[in-house]
Amino acid sequence: MRALWLENQTLSLRDDMTTPVPPPGEALVRVLLAGICNTDLELTRGYYPFAGIPGHEFVGEWEGRRVVGEINAACHSCEACGEGRVTHCDNRTVLGIRNRNGTFAEYLSLPLENLHRIPDEVSAEEAVFVEPLAAALQIQEQVTIASDDRVLLVGEGKLGQLVARTLALTGCELLVIGRHPRKRSLLEAAGIKTAESVPATKFDVAIDCSGNASGFAIARQALRPRGTLVMKSTYAGEMTINASSLVVDEITIVGSRCGPFQKAIDLIADRKVDVRGLVEATYPIDQAITAFGHARRSGALKVLVQCSE
Amino acid sequence: MRALWLENQTLSLRDDMTTPVPPPGEALVRVLLAGICNTDLELTRGYYPFAGIPGHEFVGEWEGRRVVGEINAACHSCEACGEGRVTHCDNRTVLGIRNRNGTFAEYLSLPLENLHRIPDEVSAEEAVFVEPLAAALQIQEQVTIASDDRVLLVGEGKLGQLVARTLALTGCELLVIGRHPRKRSLLEAAGIKTAESVPATKFDVAIDCSGNASGFAIARQALRPRGTLVMKSTYAGEMTINASSLVVDEITIVGSRCGPFQKAIDLIADRKVDVRGLVEATYPIDQAITAFGHARRSGALKVLVQCSE
Repeated sequence: MRALWLENQTLSLRDDMTTPVPPPGEALVRVLLAGICNTDLELTRGYYPFAGIPGHEFVGEWEGRRVVGEINAACHSCEACGEGRVTHCDNRTVLGIRNRNGTFAEYLSLPLENLHRIPDEVSAEEAVFVEPLAAALQIQEQVTIASDDRVLLVGEGKLGQLVARTLALTGCELLVIGRHPRKRSLLEAAGIKTAESVPATKFDVAIDCSGNASGFAIARQALRPRGTLVMKSTYAGEMTINASSLVVDEITIVGSRCGPFQKAIDLIADRKVDVRGLVEATYPIDQAITAFGHARRSGALKVLVQCSE
Repeated sequence: MRALWLENQTLSLRDDMTTPVPPPGEALVRVLLAGICNTDLELTRGYYPFAGIPGHEFVGEWEGRRVVGEINAACHSCEACGEGRVTHCDNRTVLGIRNRNGTFAEYLSLPLENLHRIPDEVSAEEAVFVEPLAAALQIQEQVTIASDDRVLLVGEGKLGQLVARTLALTGCELLVIGRHPRKRSLLEAAGIKTAESVPATKFDVAIDCSGNASGFAIARQALRPRGTLVMKSTYAGEMTINASSLVVDEITIVGSRCGPFQKAIDLIADRKVDVRGLVEATYPIDQAITAFGHARRSGALKVLVQCSE
């Protein structure tokens, strides 16, 4: 089969990849559309030493049904699994990230239990957003956000757009900080307040979707004492923090990763979150390397790859 | 009056200090005993540019009664005060730390509302531990610790000793890591398990009382995914963290500072926490500088200063 291959931080297109043979309990999924995430871009910069087919956001077809899939494949026998934290399984493989080939291919294999059916009223272009939308929703699984909370979101990129839309559902006083007028317009069109820089207000919760030290610093500075900072991004390299000020202000920092798929599917199906308009471009798999180049451009939104017809 | 003075990271003993004249709403407290805390030592190393009388742990006498005092003096008119976070008052002064003279003096002034009476059955040597014991208890105000939680405490120093004793009350599976045999013996004598290094076990909660980057790193490494790291110390300077791993493992970090005085007093009065045996030495105020030198020695426990008869 045709697939995109990542090795030593270099992408190559291959036509000779063996179609996966699913082990017992797994499904062979024909990939329809796959999305490029910042984590994929970071992998091509050496964020994590993955060699294989990258990609973890997809909508595919299995037994005639359209499906999306959770990306962590768990062992169900380690301590983390036993305690119900399957996305933190000690022995997990992760689609296109850790010991498991990913989505930029005609076919992929995933455990059956990871698959979620997509309702007919949800288009493939919408369904491909389920994985990152679930990740956005994970914030609310971890941190209670009340309607009178002042919430700052730093970063209005691919993930920030989704996080903003999920936060808006809480009715909280939300402000999104970002530099790109086009991305801010998209948020404003969805009824979400944006600004170029942080006002003097102190926020109860600040969420960093920037993935860099300066975004983290902006989020930190904007918090009131006893506020909560959510790290919702892929951070490359080390970061310097002022530990003393975190103690003095009794700040809580929460790392946030994968989230609830079914809730994400329901939000899209019920039109409570509208992901249309967030697609920047769609490339056929033959042009997957060009697609990555496009996704790397400053200000780019979601770039999709059509992996099969 | 006689007092210890800190300026430009230099301590001096002064006999010519004016006895404070309490403004309305404040009390003139005669200081009996004051304790040297690591924050005091860090202040002498330039952790925070305080000039004045240092010290914030004390037991004193006011109107014939023995009292201890909360160290944050709040304005009651700012946003933080309005929202009930008086220890985070925007305009607060802090005893011996920020814009308010502290305990290493014959007299100090504090708002009446900050004072707590000490029951007769509690000795002065015990009462001087109320402030740091309250700080230790603050952890449980912020993080729920269950009896089946595996809890690691890094650091068995002055504050670690108190934190360990408060954690032990929860019935959790507690392990304290430390290098000093004498301090570990004190914990073992109190029925608390200790070790020199961290076992392979993963912990639900890790508390860093070391105040340095290596202690923080040990606590971080010992956590299971979705575990909680409590920063319970005074950290000097910047610290480097691996932000990516905090996201991948969905770690929560909680900064923790001042805590509930009345709970601390009750625990000592009810003999649920025994602070006797934690005093290393007591010096008269004339020898306060020597007392600081003693407190700086590696492995030193609590050094007290007798400020008046």
